[in-house]
Amino acid sequence: MEHNREFEIDGNSNPIQISRLALDIGGSLIKLVYFSRNSGDDEDPPKDKVGVSNGVNGRLHFAKFETAKINDCLEFISANKLFLGGGFQHQENCTNDRRFIKATGGGAYKFSELFKEKLDISLEKEDEMDCLVMGANFLLKAANQEAFTYLNGQKEFVQIDHNDLYPYLLVNIGSGVSMIKVDGYGKYERVSGTSVGGGTFWGLGKLLTKCQSFDELLELSHQGNNRAIDTLVGDIYGGMDYSKVGLSSTTIASSFGKAISDNKELEDYKPEDISRSLLRMISNNIGQISYLNALRFGLKRIFFGGFFIRGHSYTMDTIAVAVHFWSKGEAKAMFLRHEGFLGALGAFMSYESPSPDNLVVNQMVPLPVNASLVTDTNFDTLKGDLNGTESIRCSIY
Amino acid sequence: MEHNREFEIDGNSNPIQISRLALDIGGSLIKLVYFSRNSGDDEDPPKDKVGVSNGVNGRLHFAKFETAKINDCLEFISANKLFLGGGFQHQENCTNDRRFIKATGGGAYKFSELFKEKLDISLEKEDEMDCLVMGANFLLKAANQEAFTYLNGQKEFVQIDHNDLYPYLLVNIGSGVSMIKVDGYGKYERVSGTSVGGGTFWGLGKLLTKCQSFDELLELSHQGNNRAIDTLVGDIYGGMDYSKVGLSSTTIASSFGKAISDNKELEDYKPEDISRSLLRMISNNIGQISYLNALRFGLKRIFFGGFFIRGHSYTMDTIAVAVHFWSKGEAKAMFLRHEGFLGALGAFMSYESPSPDNLVVNQMVPLPVNASLVTDTNFDTLKGDLNGTESIRCSIY
Repeated sequence: MEHNREFEIDGNSNPIQISRLALDIGGSLIKLVYFSRNSGDDEDPPKDKVGVSNGVNGRLHFAKFETAKINDCLEFISANKLFLGGGFQHQENCTNDRRFIKATGGGAYKFSELFKEKLDISLEKEDEMDCLVMGANFLLKAANQEAFTYLNGQKEFVQIDHNDLYPYLLVNIGSGVSMIKVDGYGKYERVSGTSVGGGTFWGLGKLLTKCQSFDELLELSHQGNNRAIDTLVGDIYGGMDYSKVGLSSTTIASSFGKAISDNKELEDYKPEDISRSLLRMISNNIGQISYLNALRFGLKRIFFGGFFIRGHSYTMDTIAVAVHFWSKGEAKAMFLRHEGFLGALGAFMSYESPSPDNLVVNQMVPLPVNASLVTDTNFDTLKGDLNGTESIRCSIY
Repeated sequence: MEHNREFEIDGNSNPIQISRLALDIGGSLIKLVYFSRNSGDDEDPPKDKVGVSNGVNGRLHFAKFETAKINDCLEFISANKLFLGGGFQHQENCTNDRRFIKATGGGAYKFSELFKEKLDISLEKEDEMDCLVMGANFLLKAANQEAFTYLNGQKEFVQIDHNDLYPYLLVNIGSGVSMIKVDGYGKYERVSGTSVGGGTFWGLGKLLTKCQSFDELLELSHQGNNRAIDTLVGDIYGGMDYSKVGLSSTTIASSFGKAISDNKELEDYKPEDISRSLLRMISNNIGQISYLNALRFGLKRIFFGGFFIRGHSYTMDTIAVAVHFWSKGEAKAMFLRHEGFLGALGAFMSYESPSPDNLVVNQMVPLPVNASLVTDTNFDTLKGDLNGTESIRCSIY
């Protein structure tokens, strides 16, 4: 195995070798996963069963950009020479005239020309669902403390029995939502989905609150109260429950229903309350449709991924409560620590014969992704959540 | 059987006897159903099997008001002396000190005091789900040309085999949505629902477009194009289908997703387009969740009722297409001509021992409901759809 190029990191002279960069270009966000070979200050490469070192030690890094700001992403790739990490295992296909990077998501098609023009890179397209499933399977099998439940504000990591992983429902919440029944390695079916996803939260939220970013809108929801705009059962029933059919007075009867009768305009509502109602409506709806699909196929475990979640407590809480409520406690929502990077990870793995066994996780190490590379421009990468600031220490075989 | 009072109609001297008024007071709308005895210009009372007239001939009338304008409704009831029609079959319970009207919906609790104070009427509360199911069963069994399918702009009435009616899924779309599995006369279970309903369409629509009424908002959607704001699969995939998983380029990937990346504010979007996207998002979501519930219980027929629909082509089309799409053609969406009045009809029937056999439909007659009563004020009843302007000629036994 060879690396394409070495270059410097952190302004000191330790050489870093970037090998493999993969992209997932979605409707809202571009996700990047890339591997950096150890620069000598990490532990020795792992040994195989007979004590022979046969892997390349290093770290997986994660970064993301808004798709609308794709030029920032191109600049980030260019300044850090990440494009040199493409085609690491494909020297036979790689001439001096053609560099390529594995890419998935609709944007791999849409922005193909742009990458060619600006960076002289070809995007080698990988199927989006293939990549999502490959990424999820990898994380669930290879990474410790990857999946967790979230109930009553408590995060609890779930130990997955690797021999009892399948079947499961993978719900990927990006701009839209895909629901995939996963039956095994490379065996899956996209069984459902909904257009009411992260793009709806952000899109409607932007129109209603003038927030300038998804994170700002999410932050607002912390201080909000959905009762200001949602019609609760108690609002219709004069403060009472409708107990005969199991609806408490605090159950939402109609999302945004109060806006009908209140003699108010948009400006009269607090953006915080709007954000909260929106988040609850969308999270609850996704939880409900996911559960109904899990039920349909007899799936007990639902893993939620995608960048809508962002480790956000209230989002996870609403989804978990929805699954709990509709399943009467029978089904469990689980979340993935690297939720947003499933597709990019899958694309990353597709450089090799795609098997999760080619990539072995040694340890998760919190490490700010931006600090790990020399930068000479102000890259507007998105920050503020677990996924964007954590690398995985691992080995490639 | 006696009627409480006679009074005049249409400014001429034909006497009309109003007997029975029932209300369904929802979060957005108040629905009224009342019976007027024939004033002599209609056909003779029907004969029973041995040729003896044993029923009271007349008409069922339908009207509706916005719940926010409940005072208009009180005035309408008062001016037309409709309150005299309460307790028609309950003389034994009715003293001079206590008049009552059967009422259902949450507002029967919430506005109980108001009716007592303004009209000196007690509201006798009937359970909302009981009434919805009773009303639907009555219409499906008793009325001809009640249920119809809607596909490709074509309305087609469905002949229901009365012996093969059950089980079915009743989806009532009011401010919120209730999904009820109906197994027989009085046998049902509320199996699901969603808070994303008519109140959401109107509430969000009002905030986003400044429309002043539901009908205005619905009207706007006619001229709209959802592609202006929704992210389609083709928008992500550079104009292409994502055919591997059966998503065409025109499938909505993310409702309101374009608002993210467009450099536009709310004012830059056409209200028509916003209304259309909103209608499509909500109708599609209801269709999908309904189908998943029908599937879960093996129900082949889904009847949609409630005032969200209003006989509106695009709404019905979207729901029907959603059911068709998600069920791969296996399940059929059916609509009810008197969609909005299920609950009020059920409450109406609860005056007697509740059996659909006590009310026999003779003929549907289009008759503007407002023209059938003397009015001396400008009642702001809601107009513009089939249900508000059609009475049913029928007999009470």
